[in-house]
Amino acid sequence: MHIELLLTGNELMSGDTVDSNSAMIAQRFREQGWTIARKITVGDNFEQLVEEIRRQAAKADLLLINGGLGPTVDDLTAAALATACGVALAEHPGALAWLQSWCAQRNIPLNTANRKQAMLPAGCTLVPNPEGSAVGFSMVLDDCLVIATPGVPSELRTMLDTSIMPQLYSHFGASPAVTERMTFFGMGESGIQELINTRWPDWPAEVELGFRVVFPLIELKLTTRSARHNEQRLRCRGWLEQAMQDYLVGPGDATLQSCVVELLRERGQTVALAESCTGGLIAALLTEIPGVSAVFEAGYVTYSNTQKQQVLGVPAALLETHGAVSQAVVEAMARGALAAARSDWVLAVSGIAGPDGGSAAKPVGTVWIAWGNAERLDSACFLYGGGRKMTQSIAAHTAMDLLRRRLLGIESEPRFLRVRRVS
Amino acid sequence: MHIELLLTGNELMSGDTVDSNSAMIAQRFREQGWTIARKITVGDNFEQLVEEIRRQAAKADLLLINGGLGPTVDDLTAAALATACGVALAEHPGALAWLQSWCAQRNIPLNTANRKQAMLPAGCTLVPNPEGSAVGFSMVLDDCLVIATPGVPSELRTMLDTSIMPQLYSHFGASPAVTERMTFFGMGESGIQELINTRWPDWPAEVELGFRVVFPLIELKLTTRSARHNEQRLRCRGWLEQAMQDYLVGPGDATLQSCVVELLRERGQTVALAESCTGGLIAALLTEIPGVSAVFEAGYVTYSNTQKQQVLGVPAALLETHGAVSQAVVEAMARGALAAARSDWVLAVSGIAGPDGGSAAKPVGTVWIAWGNAERLDSACFLYGGGRKMTQSIAAHTAMDLLRRRLLGIESEPRFLRVRRVS
Repeated sequence: MHIELLLTGNELMSGDTVDSNSAMIAQRFREQGWTIARKITVGDNFEQLVEEIRRQAAKADLLLINGGLGPTVDDLTAAALATACGVALAEHPGALAWLQSWCAQRNIPLNTANRKQAMLPAGCTLVPNPEGSAVGFSMVLDDCLVIATPGVPSELRTMLDTSIMPQLYSHFGASPAVTERMTFFGMGESGIQELINTRWPDWPAEVELGFRVVFPLIELKLTTRSARHNEQRLRCRGWLEQAMQDYLVGPGDATLQSCVVELLRERGQTVALAESCTGGLIAALLTEIPGVSAVFEAGYVTYSNTQKQQVLGVPAALLETHGAVSQAVVEAMARGALAAARSDWVLAVSGIAGPDGGSAAKPVGTVWIAWGNAERLDSACFLYGGGRKMTQSIAAHTAMDLLRRRLLGIESEPRFLRVRRVS
Repeated sequence: MHIELLLTGNELMSGDTVDSNSAMIAQRFREQGWTIARKITVGDNFEQLVEEIRRQAAKADLLLINGGLGPTVDDLTAAALATACGVALAEHPGALAWLQSWCAQRNIPLNTANRKQAMLPAGCTLVPNPEGSAVGFSMVLDDCLVIATPGVPSELRTMLDTSIMPQLYSHFGASPAVTERMTFFGMGESGIQELINTRWPDWPAEVELGFRVVFPLIELKLTTRSARHNEQRLRCRGWLEQAMQDYLVGPGDATLQSCVVELLRERGQTVALAESCTGGLIAALLTEIPGVSAVFEAGYVTYSNTQKQQVLGVPAALLETHGAVSQAVVEAMARGALAAARSDWVLAVSGIAGPDGGSAAKPVGTVWIAWGNAERLDSACFLYGGGRKMTQSIAAHTAMDLLRRRLLGIESEPRFLRVRRVS
C-alpha cells in the first residue's frame, strides 16, 4: 500500500510549530505494518494544496491530509479537496448536527465561522472527531482514499483509534493489529533484545517487538497483525512478564514515581527522602503524582555537610573520615531521615553529579544510594556517565526503582547501571 | 526568493524521529525575512531523492537538503544530487583533508565507510561542518542553489551560523540580519506587545519583534536586516531594557535558576528552601546548575504538617488556626528554614497544587510564597490555573523570580500572575 501525507499550516512553515503529528501517524501505521512513502508540507495556500492533493492522489492508495480544518479563512483543506475532486462545497447535515451539539454542550452559539466547518466536499464521508468541532472527512480521488484530519494532536490521536484506523481496516480489508505495551526500568534495549534472542530462539515471527525510549525508562511493544496470532502474543507477553518481572514498572504509560506512590498507598505506608546530589529531584518527581501527600512524609535536600549533620544527624566524624559521598554517610543520612520523618521507608542519595568535584577515587558520576526501612537498610554505589543532568536523572530513577523492588520483595538490582561496589 | 526543503531519512518516515531541523531552519530564515514554500520528506530511497531534487530545483531558487550525509549505505544524498545534476561522484580533496584531520583528532583510523563521506558530486562547493565528520556541499542545478546538510541537529545549528547563512548572503547578495535575544519572566506575550504599542507608537518598522515561549519564560527577539538599522535596534533594546528591567532575566538562554545562582555567587551568599506544594522542584531546578553547592544550603520538602512543625518549627497553633496554606504558616516556614540552614536568604512555598484539596476559600491553585532574609521577609498569595504540574512549575519560577528581584533591589512583583492578596 502506497501511503502519503500532506501536512498544511503556515505555523509548520515558519518554524513556530514542530510537526509531531506525522510521527504519531507513522508510529500508529507501523504497528499495522504500513509505511509512509512521502510527506509533503505546505503553508495555507489554496493553489499549492490543490496541486499537491492531485499529484499525491495520482500516486498513492491512501493520502492523509493533516491540518486546515478549522473555522478561520486560512483553513483551506475542504475547499482544496473539493476543487481537486471537481466537486462543490456543500453543507453536510451530519457535520452540521455535530457542530450544533458541540456548541450546545458548551453553551456557545453556532456562529458563521464555526458553521463554515460543516461546508465539506459534496459526496464526502464523515470521519468523526469525538473531541473537537472540526470533523474529518474522506473522498476517493483517482482510486486513492483521501482522508482530511485536524491538526490538533490530541484530536488526531483519538481519531486514529476511534475513526481513522477502523475506516482503513474496512476500506483496505485489513485486520487491526493489536499492540501491548510494557514499561521497564533497569535494562537497556540491547539487553532486552539479547535476553529474548538467548531465551527464546523460537520467538514467533508474527509477534513483532518494538522499543521506545522514554528516558530512562524503556517501553516495549508486542504487536500482532491478525486475531490468529493473539495466543502467540499473549504467550510472549507471559514469557517477558516472567523473565523480566524484576524490571517491569507497569503498562505503557507507567512511571517509577506513579508505581512507587501506588505501592505505598496500597500499603498505607510513607517514605522520606534525604537527597544530596539529586537535589530534590526525587521529591519533585514523587510530588508530580496527585495524592502523594498520603505517602510522602518529608524530603531533606541536605546539600552541605553542616546540613547533613544538623538535619539528619550524620556524625561529623563520619563525614571527615569517609567524605560525604560514602556508604557510611549515605546510610547515616537514611537513618537520620527515617528518624526525623518517622516514615516507614527511606531513600538517601549522595554523589558527585559534576562537572567538578570528582577525584581518582571518587570520579564524577559516583553515586551512593541507601534504601530500606528501620529493620533493613541496604546501600550500593553506582557510577554513571553522561553529564550532570543525566546523572541526577538516572540516580533519582534508580533510587525509586530500588524502593519499588524492595516493596515488591525483589532482591536483585537494576542491571544496565554499572555497579562499582555493592554491600 | 522561493525556498524549498528536502528532508531524507527512514527514521523520519517511521516516526522514530520527530523532525525539529526544519523548524530550526525556518526560524533562522525567518529572522532573515525568508519563508519556506514547501517541505518534502522521503525515506532513504535513491530514485525518490533524484526525482524530488529535480522537481524542487526546477521551482526553487534555494533547495536545502537535510540528512543522508553519513558513512553508511543508506546515506544517499551525495549520489542522488550527483545523478540529478548529471555529474559523477568524485573524491573531494577538501572533504578528504577534513575527514583525515577529524579522524586524527579523535585518534581513529580513516576507514572505508568514513572515506565514503569524501565522495561528492564533481564540481561541488564544500560547506564546512566544524562539528561532524560529514561536510556539507552545494551545487547549482537549474538556476537553483542546492545545499546538502547533515541531519544531526547540533551540527546543522552550527553550520547555519558559520557556513550556510554566509554562503546564502553571498550567493543572493543579501545582508545578514542581526538578532538580539532577551529572556523575560513575569509578563506574557500580549503584555509585552501592549507595552510596546502604548509606550512606543513610533517603534521603527525596521526592528522586527519576535516571541518564543520557553514556558514559563518568554524569549524576545529584536531583528534588523541591514547594518543601516543597527542603531535603531540598539535604541529599541535600550528602551526595552529600561522599561522592562524588572522582568529581564538575562540574554537568550538565561534561566531563573542560572540567574539566581549567579547573583548569589557574586554576593557570596546562600539560600535555603522550604517547599510544600512545589515538592522539591525549586531545589531540583537550582541544583541543575553546576557549582550550586556554593550558594545552596538546604531544601526542606515539608509535605506534612508534622514535618512543618518538627523541621521548620512552625507552631501547631498556627497550622490549626490558619491552615498550612496561609500567610502565617508560609512565613513561619521561611523563618524556620532560615534558622535551620543559617542561610542568608530563604524561599518558602505552601499551596494547593490539586487536583484535590481545594475549598471555596482556598481553591486549587492557591499558593503562598514567602521570600527574603532575617531582616525583611515578604510574602504574597498567588492563584494559578492550569493543573497540578503547571501550578508547581509557575510557583517554583515565581519564587525564584521574587528572590531575583529582591537581590537586585526591585520592589515590584511579576505582573502576569494573578495576585489574590499581597501583604
